Amino acid sequence: MTGIIIGTNREGSLSEEVAQFYKKKLTELNQAASLIDLKKLPKDFQFTALYGKKNPEFDEFQKKIDQCEKLIFVVPEYNNSYPGIVKSFIEGLRHPDTFTSKKIALVGVSTGVLGNAIGLSHLNDILSYLNANVLGLRVKLGSLDTHFSDGQITSETYNLFINRQIQSFLAF
Amino acid sequence: MTGIIIGTNREGSLSEEVAQFYKKKLTELNQAASLIDLKKLPKDFQFTALYGKKNPEFDEFQKKIDQCEKLIFVVPEYNNSYPGIVKSFIEGLRHPDTFTSKKIALVGVSTGVLGNAIGLSHLNDILSYLNANVLGLRVKLGSLDTHFSDGQITSETYNLFINRQIQSFLAF
Amino acid sequence: MTGIIIGTNREGSLSEEVAQFYKKKLTELNQAASLIDLKKLPKDFQFTALYGKKNPEFDEFQKKIDQCEKLIFVVPEYNNSYPGIVKSFIEGLRHPDTFTSKKIALVGVSTGVLGNAIGLSHLNDILSYLNANVLGLRVKLGSLDTHFSDGQITSETYNLFINRQIQSFLAF
Amino acid sequence: MTGIIIGTNREGSLSEEVAQFYKKKLTELNQAASLIDLKKLPKDFQFTALYGKKNPEFDEFQKKIDQCEKLIFVVPEYNNSYPGIVKSFIEGLRHPDTFTSKKIALVGVSTGVLGNAIGLSHLNDILSYLNANVLGLRVKLGSLDTHFSDGQITSETYNLFINRQIQSFLAF
Repeated sequence: MTGIIIGTNREGSLSEEVAQFYKKKLTELNQAASLIDLKKLPKDFQFTALYGKKNPEFDEFQKKIDQCEKLIFVVPEYNNSYPGIVKSFIEGLRHPDTFTSKKIALVGVSTGVLGNAIGLSHLNDILSYLNANVLGLRVKLGSLDTHFSDGQITSETYNLFINRQIQSFLAF
Repeated sequence: MTGIIIGTNREGSLSEEVAQFYKKKLTELNQAASLIDLKKLPKDFQFTALYGKKNPEFDEFQKKIDQCEKLIFVVPEYNNSYPGIVKSFIEGLRHPDTFTSKKIALVGVSTGVLGNAIGLSHLNDILSYLNANVLGLRVKLGSLDTHFSDGQITSETYNLFINRQIQSFLAF
Repeated sequence: MTGIIIGTNREGSLSEEVAQFYKKKLTELNQAASLIDLKKLPKDFQFTALYGKKNPEFDEFQKKIDQCEKLIFVVPEYNNSYPGIVKSFIEGLRHPDTFTSKKIALVGVSTGVLGNAIGLSHLNDILSYLNANVLGLRVKLGSLDTHFSDGQITSETYNLFINRQIQSFLAF
Repeated sequence: MTGIIIGTNREGSLSEEVAQFYKKKLTELNQAASLIDLKKLPKDFQFTALYGKKNPEFDEFQKKIDQCEKLIFVVPEYNNSYPGIVKSFIEGLRHPDTFTSKKIALVGVSTGVLGNAIGLSHLNDILSYLNANVLGLRVKLGSLDTHFSDGQITSETYNLFINRQIQSFLAF
């Protein structure tokens, strides 16, 4: 199973739409894929699910992650990096083996030009530390508000990179 | 006023003790200093104070930050970087001018050897983007469980770096 | 004196033109500015000027750097980061005090969209470690081949950022 | 074939000894391994082998790299990052496919405590951009002057990490 993490809890995010797009692409390739939506985290999980505290609602997220041997992080750019909730989420998961040897692909989303280039670099540092293996090809979807419409990527270049990433990820 | 941010909401953290230590040092130098304690954030602030939502309890934090022309971030190392709550906190603050031209010093805390070297690099990227000016000298307090006792840093090297950082920060 | 480092030894680089542009801007503001051109380094300096070896030609660069209290690095993006020659150049300079307390501004140049965002982050890590103070505002000139003509930046946004950076740098 | 890159041109480096150590380990596991020694680069390669210039001596390095499906970078920490020559070397190699889909492992070496943590992060950014796949587990050999003697790692922890890295790398 490939889990696709919507890397924000903001309502109506482009990242959510991009995650849906990736799910559709994987499904078309007969790959089982499931969305993991940080909007649905318990609202106080930062205070009730970290540092060894048990939160049954949060545990459902742990179970979902455990069922995935591969993960795609779709991560918007906030203040030049990934949203804090992505990191808080990782901190709530079982340590240290949750990500060990999992295969990870990174997708950055922004309305600015960078496509979260810096945030994906930061996230790679964290996931590598947790012994995940991160696919080299990071897809950076900058200026995405002008390249996404009706659930479709309208930029040929972006479609090319996404297809290349998915092919590499299936072979990874 | 110099604000000293305790960069975690974990109870009984070394970072909190280090923040207290920095406060004492500044007070001895007749510098007004105030702790900003992320443990006291509203427990659901990631869902109630970001993305334009108004949360009066969170606003108290905004006011405190606005009163400080200088900030010291004391930040533990979780999974090879800063805690997610630090970033979520920044995301909740008024955009884009909250940090503009503020002077910042970075202090990393860990029981491992790195002293959050990677996390301070990540945080520098974010604060620079927000137009803060970050002091070059980042203090990285690795293996701190063996170099801190009764509220005091017991490593001569660490005391030397801390004093150098504080002197540079006052002149910054 | 403000030194403007042309961060590549490639002939005919856009970075050289951007460095010239910055020099002109500073001169118009009655600020003394001088180009430091890595093309003019001794061709074997990586083997004859590092690790304590003395190279009189390289020493001329050391003298120039020592005369500058402020430095602007204009740095192209090669393979998602700064050119290796920039780092080798830094390694050849006197350690550890060459950059101590110098004020630094960073300018990234690329034909791709990123404007060397990642490379400026990397360079910031190195210069901060050397106790330089790096201005928060990093100017990232992406897609510059379409925004630069006849020695002039033709993008209004870029001119705005450059002017803001220069004003902040003068006050830094 | 696994290429082991000695990531400096300094004579008598610890990194060279660590590279030899990795070669011995691989040989014991019946893995073909070959050292790639940046000390042997043409001394002016920065000026004669980059930007499309042809240098037959440098081409020998290209051939060696082309013969390796896997690469281990053993990289000392200079000024908080990797040596510039490592990056210059990468810039001289054929673009853009030299590293595509190659498997990479990263080893940092320092006498300070960090084990080049920051430099490996920087290098990962570059190699990922070049579509290499970098093993998550980065080995950071800090304070190595006290943990290396007669060609052997004397720290049990370091041996454990190295063995784990090599096993993961063989399975990668």
